[in-house]
Amino acid sequence: MAKESTTIDVGEPSTVTKSTSHEKKKGFVAAAARGGYKRGLSIFDFLLRLAAIGITIGASSVMFTAEETLPFFTQFLQFQAGYDDFPTFQFFVIAIAIVASYLVLSLPFSIVTIVRPLAVVPRLILLISDTVVLTLTTSAAAAAASIVYLAHNGNTNTNWLPICQQFGDFCQTASTAVVAASISVVFFVLLIVISAIGLKRH
Amino acid sequence: MAKESTTIDVGEPSTVTKSTSHEKKKGFVAAAARGGYKRGLSIFDFLLRLAAIGITIGASSVMFTAEETLPFFTQFLQFQAGYDDFPTFQFFVIAIAIVASYLVLSLPFSIVTIVRPLAVVPRLILLISDTVVLTLTTSAAAAAASIVYLAHNGNTNTNWLPICQQFGDFCQTASTAVVAASISVVFFVLLIVISAIGLKRH
Repeated sequence: MAKESTTIDVGEPSTVTKSTSHEKKKGFVAAAARGGYKRGLSIFDFLLRLAAIGITIGASSVMFTAEETLPFFTQFLQFQAGYDDFPTFQFFVIAIAIVASYLVLSLPFSIVTIVRPLAVVPRLILLISDTVVLTLTTSAAAAAASIVYLAHNGNTNTNWLPICQQFGDFCQTASTAVVAASISVVFFVLLIVISAIGLKRH
Repeated sequence: MAKESTTIDVGEPSTVTKSTSHEKKKGFVAAAARGGYKRGLSIFDFLLRLAAIGITIGASSVMFTAEETLPFFTQFLQFQAGYDDFPTFQFFVIAIAIVASYLVLSLPFSIVTIVRPLAVVPRLILLISDTVVLTLTTSAAAAAASIVYLAHNGNTNTNWLPICQQFGDFCQTASTAVVAASISVVFFVLLIVISAIGLKRH
């Protein structure tokens, strides 16, 4: 009986030591795995930013170059529509260009989160600035969308006539730019979700 | 020498035990402090949501009741402007009403973060859904803002005449609703920032 208990006593510390070293190893592995999956998130974040840069530059320049001149004109007047005829479209071009520049400037922070996947501050900075820029992108897209809708459908109550019958190509181009900006809004929502998941503890 | 080392040997474990208990206590205090400051964040989150509910309900109902009938009329026609004459304003009323209902439904989650300030899942759910609803709020506000701008200034290029000279009160009411919705956008950005700070590890 006494011998048994001694054997147990001798055996216990060794198993304890084993299990602690095991736990430690497990902890290291868990930390590495967490770092790895957060690094994966950061790489996805970086790629999304690159795609968003392409889309926003595209949206801004498509709207900027939207122009149509009708093939008939009077002596004093040529019928022409451009983005600068609509204050909302001007706002769209400027706002989306600002968003594209912001995205380029945010790339270094995204790289920092790839190099140090467990760092908190760069992710928090990215999340907050992404949220602010998301509102800018959404407002530009929505404002332009409401004007595009008006240009297509007009409003009989206020006697605002649709212009897309005359300026079909211009409307088409403006709609394309609005769709591109809306896609970049989805990208921003994804970027914010990625930053949030990267920030959480477990 | 041997005795000294023994004394040190004996003394060491006791100081180690002391320091660990001290560390533990410190750890508890730190956790409590962290819990306390996160609880403070959650309470602020809850109050912001209450304020946002008030503002969104106000914005939606103000736009819903915006109507003006001019004091002159012909035999067949009465000059009247209401929110339902503008598809964008209809979208505004519906979207902001949805946002207000979402905010009411999000209150229980906010209460959970007050009761369990270190819980991760409810904060993550709030952050993601807040981000999605932020885009809805911003798009409704921006689309309505661009129509209000058009109603005030018109657009000579497309021959869309301003209607605010005739329907001044209606324009005033619609502008108020847009401003209220814009304030709620700021509230949503704050809510997202609070959730992000609550999510981070340190």
